[in-house]
Amino acid sequence: MKEEKKSFPELAAQLAVIGREFYARGWVLGTSGNLSAVISREPLRIAITSSGLDKGELAATHFLEIDSDANVIKGEGRPSAETLLHIAVAKLRGAGAVLHTHSVWSNILSDAHVCEGGITIEGYEMLKGLEGVSTHEHSEWLPVIENSQDMRSLAVSVEAMLREQTNVHGFLLRRHGLYTWGRDLAEAKRHVEIFEFLLEVLGRTSLKAEG
Amino acid sequence: MKEEKKSFPELAAQLAVIGREFYARGWVLGTSGNLSAVISREPLRIAITSSGLDKGELAATHFLEIDSDANVIKGEGRPSAETLLHIAVAKLRGAGAVLHTHSVWSNILSDAHVCEGGITIEGYEMLKGLEGVSTHEHSEWLPVIENSQDMRSLAVSVEAMLREQTNVHGFLLRRHGLYTWGRDLAEAKRHVEIFEFLLEVLGRTSLKAEG
Amino acid sequence: MKEEKKSFPELAAQLAVIGREFYARGWVLGTSGNLSAVISREPLRIAITSSGLDKGELAATHFLEIDSDANVIKGEGRPSAETLLHIAVAKLRGAGAVLHTHSVWSNILSDAHVCEGGITIEGYEMLKGLEGVSTHEHSEWLPVIENSQDMRSLAVSVEAMLREQTNVHGFLLRRHGLYTWGRDLAEAKRHVEIFEFLLEVLGRTSLKAEG
Amino acid sequence: MKEEKKSFPELAAQLAVIGREFYARGWVLGTSGNLSAVISREPLRIAITSSGLDKGELAATHFLEIDSDANVIKGEGRPSAETLLHIAVAKLRGAGAVLHTHSVWSNILSDAHVCEGGITIEGYEMLKGLEGVSTHEHSEWLPVIENSQDMRSLAVSVEAMLREQTNVHGFLLRRHGLYTWGRDLAEAKRHVEIFEFLLEVLGRTSLKAEG
Repeated sequence: MKEEKKSFPELAAQLAVIGREFYARGWVLGTSGNLSAVISREPLRIAITSSGLDKGELAATHFLEIDSDANVIKGEGRPSAETLLHIAVAKLRGAGAVLHTHSVWSNILSDAHVCEGGITIEGYEMLKGLEGVSTHEHSEWLPVIENSQDMRSLAVSVEAMLREQTNVHGFLLRRHGLYTWGRDLAEAKRHVEIFEFLLEVLGRTSLKAEG
Repeated sequence: MKEEKKSFPELAAQLAVIGREFYARGWVLGTSGNLSAVISREPLRIAITSSGLDKGELAATHFLEIDSDANVIKGEGRPSAETLLHIAVAKLRGAGAVLHTHSVWSNILSDAHVCEGGITIEGYEMLKGLEGVSTHEHSEWLPVIENSQDMRSLAVSVEAMLREQTNVHGFLLRRHGLYTWGRDLAEAKRHVEIFEFLLEVLGRTSLKAEG
Repeated sequence: MKEEKKSFPELAAQLAVIGREFYARGWVLGTSGNLSAVISREPLRIAITSSGLDKGELAATHFLEIDSDANVIKGEGRPSAETLLHIAVAKLRGAGAVLHTHSVWSNILSDAHVCEGGITIEGYEMLKGLEGVSTHEHSEWLPVIENSQDMRSLAVSVEAMLREQTNVHGFLLRRHGLYTWGRDLAEAKRHVEIFEFLLEVLGRTSLKAEG
Repeated sequence: MKEEKKSFPELAAQLAVIGREFYARGWVLGTSGNLSAVISREPLRIAITSSGLDKGELAATHFLEIDSDANVIKGEGRPSAETLLHIAVAKLRGAGAVLHTHSVWSNILSDAHVCEGGITIEGYEMLKGLEGVSTHEHSEWLPVIENSQDMRSLAVSVEAMLREQTNVHGFLLRRHGLYTWGRDLAEAKRHVEIFEFLLEVLGRTSLKAEG
């Protein structure tokens, strides 16, 4: 199915709506989080939030158009250091949109599961919301990567993981948050909701199990 | 009491409002959940969400009119596989509306109580919000059915349960979510709120009890 | 300080706003809860929600004007059986408004503390939001009364408690919810928020303590 | 970077928006909390909420302009007793805005950590939202001060702490709430969100750890 092509202003406007919604849910508080969507592939052009914005007031004018080296082509402000991760996902997964959130449960569970290198999520109907998953009996592996401020090396870790684990729909950075993506913005947004839901279910269930 | 007859567009518009409200509460995230209302009984015609929609943007135009075999009579899109469960409830209970949500607590509690085949909820004033219940001393049985992707067989299980347990006001699918219904949309919506409330109370109480 | 006199329509409109806000917070789901305000004292006239309403759609027209025996003077619909409790509080406390909510935490804590007959809340700054409390070192007693469907007898229990415990600002009905009140609607609303906040703090703290 | 100078009405309008947002999140329920912003430094003039307001209905007209001794220069109403703490922070930290919230998690954690005199928060990416913090490896000390109704003595305690601990971005009053600040309102608001987020993460994590 060929996706309708969208312009930078259109994508920026759609990203801004999603950003404000995520803010309302407490997933991108305190200027955290980054949202991006691919404008074109050849050459690669991405619409992405500039750094340090209050996501509760996000508007289309807050987005930058960047190239595959994170150079700013259009827009005012500087891209977040994490832009490299968005580019890595867009390239290696062919993602049309990459969304990054900081939620309470992703912080808690990424920390609890860092030693195993990730979290297995299985048996939930909600998994069917992930692209290509057609049964709750699916076992989803959500990798946890140690957080770092060295974005070059973090991007290398993420790229290595994405090359090796071609079935994942997202990953967690430890005590940091979730990255997920989709063919288009709607799919990426759906994946955020699916993962945030499932992380909350797992987090609350483990309270019972360990209680 | 005779219910006022409503048209497909009217019911679709009302269902869309409820869908957006449930989305705001986190009960139908990630395109999960299905909402339906009976348009006519002879022949059976049902307004139901088409598959894969973002419930946060649900509009009247997103609904299908289907017949008793889940054939689409009006509207664009395809019905969810779970449409068969809506039809089963509409037929066997004479329900005017059937609402299906995926909440965090219904996922957790359906899993914790699957071995007993259901959850007993008793002693709560909130139970009086269920049709026909006039005292908090009522003991409500909320069956839990093992989840399945085989909708024909799942519909058979649900039908058998509904024939046998004529007093239930809803049921859970394990690690999946809640089905409840009502004479009309207002009653079905009320039942969702009642069950979601009570499941949260039970879930949080069990944390204390087992802690 | 003399309170400004308000008409039935004014009070009904204000109560409707509060009802919709409480609904949004999940405190009056599933048509639960009752809201009332005193229109006049001599003779006693009270504006109160009629029974069985969706509080998310509450409008001024959904209120009844009743007398001191719960007879309907104005408005369509029937008063809730719990109207007797509102009248008891309005009479014995001289309350200008009585608000009754059903929250998750009031259900859990009323159940956990029914044997002691109530909950002691002390040491919280938030207590200063209760009328007449000027220090966090205050010890507030929040009685828990066993729930009942016999409203005459429940009203008698509540009246006896109110006569005996003249310092309380509210009470819980077991596994049912909170009653609180104030000189006027603003004070009663504030008291709901204070108690709901403190019950959540106590409930979550006890999870830690017992964990 | 020189900050744009703002007038009392402008700051009051911005503070009102923030107050309503915090109210929606449950951080300033029941008239709790105080919000302030510095209008000028020489002489010191501060816009601050007057006492006892419902933060859900906060408007620009609800603010007072006060001087460095908490005398009211403009506006109707009386300043909260806690105004002294706002003045202390504005003076000692050169803060352009001081925000004080009462959240569930700040109540719980301030109580749990009062013996240690504060809470160490380290290892979270979200810490980078605090001014001057550039890595998640940062260790943030959030002091907990025993609550008191003697505002003169409490202000002295807070001042002593601020002089001694020059790196803190905020502090908790035990079983009371959070104070944080920023160069301007946007930064102070961001700090509230960061601390509230991290306190929730720590609070829920400790449930698991102690469970």
